[in-house]
Amino acid sequence: MSIVLAIDGMGGDQAPKIAIDGMAKAALRFPQLRFELFGTEEKIRPLLEQQKNLSTITRFHPTTEVLTSEIKPTAAIRGFKDSSLRRAIMAVHQGQASGVVSAGPTGAYMVLSRLILGTLPGIDRPAIGGLMPTFNGLKVMLDMGANVEVSAENLVEFAIMGVAFARTVLGIQEPSVGLLNIGTEELKGNATIKLAYQSLKESAFIPNFKGFIEGDSLSQGIVDVTVADGFSGNICLKTAEGTSKLLGHFLREGIERSFLSKLGVLLAKPAFNYLRDKIDPRRYNGAPFLGLQGVAVKSHGGTDGEGFLQAISVAVNMVEKNINASISHEILAFSSLNLTEEKLKNVPSETSSPVTEGVGVS
Amino acid sequence: MSIVLAIDGMGGDQAPKIAIDGMAKAALRFPQLRFELFGTEEKIRPLLEQQKNLSTITRFHPTTEVLTSEIKPTAAIRGFKDSSLRRAIMAVHQGQASGVVSAGPTGAYMVLSRLILGTLPGIDRPAIGGLMPTFNGLKVMLDMGANVEVSAENLVEFAIMGVAFARTVLGIQEPSVGLLNIGTEELKGNATIKLAYQSLKESAFIPNFKGFIEGDSLSQGIVDVTVADGFSGNICLKTAEGTSKLLGHFLREGIERSFLSKLGVLLAKPAFNYLRDKIDPRRYNGAPFLGLQGVAVKSHGGTDGEGFLQAISVAVNMVEKNINASISHEILAFSSLNLTEEKLKNVPSETSSPVTEGVGVS
Repeated sequence: MSIVLAIDGMGGDQAPKIAIDGMAKAALRFPQLRFELFGTEEKIRPLLEQQKNLSTITRFHPTTEVLTSEIKPTAAIRGFKDSSLRRAIMAVHQGQASGVVSAGPTGAYMVLSRLILGTLPGIDRPAIGGLMPTFNGLKVMLDMGANVEVSAENLVEFAIMGVAFARTVLGIQEPSVGLLNIGTEELKGNATIKLAYQSLKESAFIPNFKGFIEGDSLSQGIVDVTVADGFSGNICLKTAEGTSKLLGHFLREGIERSFLSKLGVLLAKPAFNYLRDKIDPRRYNGAPFLGLQGVAVKSHGGTDGEGFLQAISVAVNMVEKNINASISHEILAFSSLNLTEEKLKNVPSETSSPVTEGVGVS
Repeated sequence: MSIVLAIDGMGGDQAPKIAIDGMAKAALRFPQLRFELFGTEEKIRPLLEQQKNLSTITRFHPTTEVLTSEIKPTAAIRGFKDSSLRRAIMAVHQGQASGVVSAGPTGAYMVLSRLILGTLPGIDRPAIGGLMPTFNGLKVMLDMGANVEVSAENLVEFAIMGVAFARTVLGIQEPSVGLLNIGTEELKGNATIKLAYQSLKESAFIPNFKGFIEGDSLSQGIVDVTVADGFSGNICLKTAEGTSKLLGHFLREGIERSFLSKLGVLLAKPAFNYLRDKIDPRRYNGAPFLGLQGVAVKSHGGTDGEGFLQAISVAVNMVEKNINASISHEILAFSSLNLTEEKLKNVPSETSSPVTEGVGVS
């Protein structure tokens, strides 16, 4: 059975090239794939015509507007009715496609998706998932920045959605889950995260719930799903990016300092290529918006066709494995437990004493 | 004029060796240094006697208890009256020493320091500072985990304390300051951080205030002082640690895969040593507790004598440059501006609309 994806051709620095290239590669990998492509006629047409294998499987819909990151999400809601991004999302809403992929501005993309597609029953806030390289293979973390302020219930929903994603897309049977915190003891962290901890622990809804994990455990991949509020999650993600750049910078500085090093690095090229490939952001491209009535995947704006292909693959997986059905099912099952706040209120309260509050480094 | 530091000899994995080694090295670097050393007699005495250059400048006070990370901060407050950590802090409180250095458990250390030394007038919450390597040299970030929940006023205090630290210890004349956020636009982030932004912007109290910065800008060192709540600050710090380990791991994996790579890496050893040295945690050891009536510095528990020396150096700098005097002065000057919340309440409110709330990734 064929899968139809709506593609916003105008997102990303190299638009529309990255989208078209990605589609062409995806067509080879997924023969069941069909595209509804949205974008500016004069920019898309020439590139599209170069990709013979797309002609038969792509329906092109010219659009007149483009959403850039300069445009505020609120403005994107009010106006830009004919933007390629909005039209692509509409295609999912109207049932012409089962998923949308865009490298457009995250803020507007999430806001429009939420507005047009709506959230799944029982989901209060959709979340942005992100794939991360670890000692232990690919893992997922959410929220990556859609929700700066969250409730304990939100964090629990994130956990449930993360498990569904790890099962369907990462193919992990019984995914393990951790709550990102500044310590692993029950007493660490703020009230919200402690309540979420209690809720997941007492419900035993997620068999493989591992409790709290710290920032340095993320890259060890000791859990398959890391749950965080969008603020720390986003800072975490970007700090990891920045740190990689810094180490690369220091290594290059060091190499520049001696001829032997330059020679050595030439010989060691395979090792560096291996490393580069392991942390190649294109391998981890494709951030799923979880909790929406429909599949939406955000591609990094700075990626290329290879990276866009990855984002498409994530969308294909989510559609094929029907991730939203399992999320709905799980959320329903969890809410049927109806855990009362009272039942959970026996949260350890040591950290609420003024002097000890939140002292968490170790 | 001589400087007296109280040393908790029993902190850290290799205690008391790291403290004694660090003291011996420090004695050579800082001839004006004197020590009040606290710890378990039978463990300290033998090591101390091996360090001839310490005998004349060290007063040893045998103690009978040791605080470990297993002991809850609250328990550390109630009992353990004769612990080496508490006794060392008391020595500062009683004026026998002007600063304390310990590799003991952070939670108990901060709680006891706050309880025994008290906070500086005008300081609501002390913060833990941390030094970070960047493209641009050593920078400071705070809070590293003392305060999981903060107010806008707390963040402003952190900024002022961070500036004082960067001036006195890092020797930066007019330190630049950034607030850690998930985007650089005024609209990004939660209410607390936006209010802190307004307060710093409208007061123009910190001439070099750069507004919001993102996680990936940290390692670029575009600001001298990064201000964050203790939750994100701690997660940020640990994520950076974890990422370094992960990259090292992938590189080693890559090297193992080919003989030429192994050979190349041998040749490139100087470059790798350069990198290792650049990110050597011992270089950045010594986390200052800022905002207390007295100088307190936390050494990493896993460090060695070289690292402990760094922690001592930070304390020496803070004492010599009288950082607390400048913090008090600045805090007083700022509060004299008495900015009313009202004056600041013109905070952009776009993100408070339900759908656009906090959408922050870009």
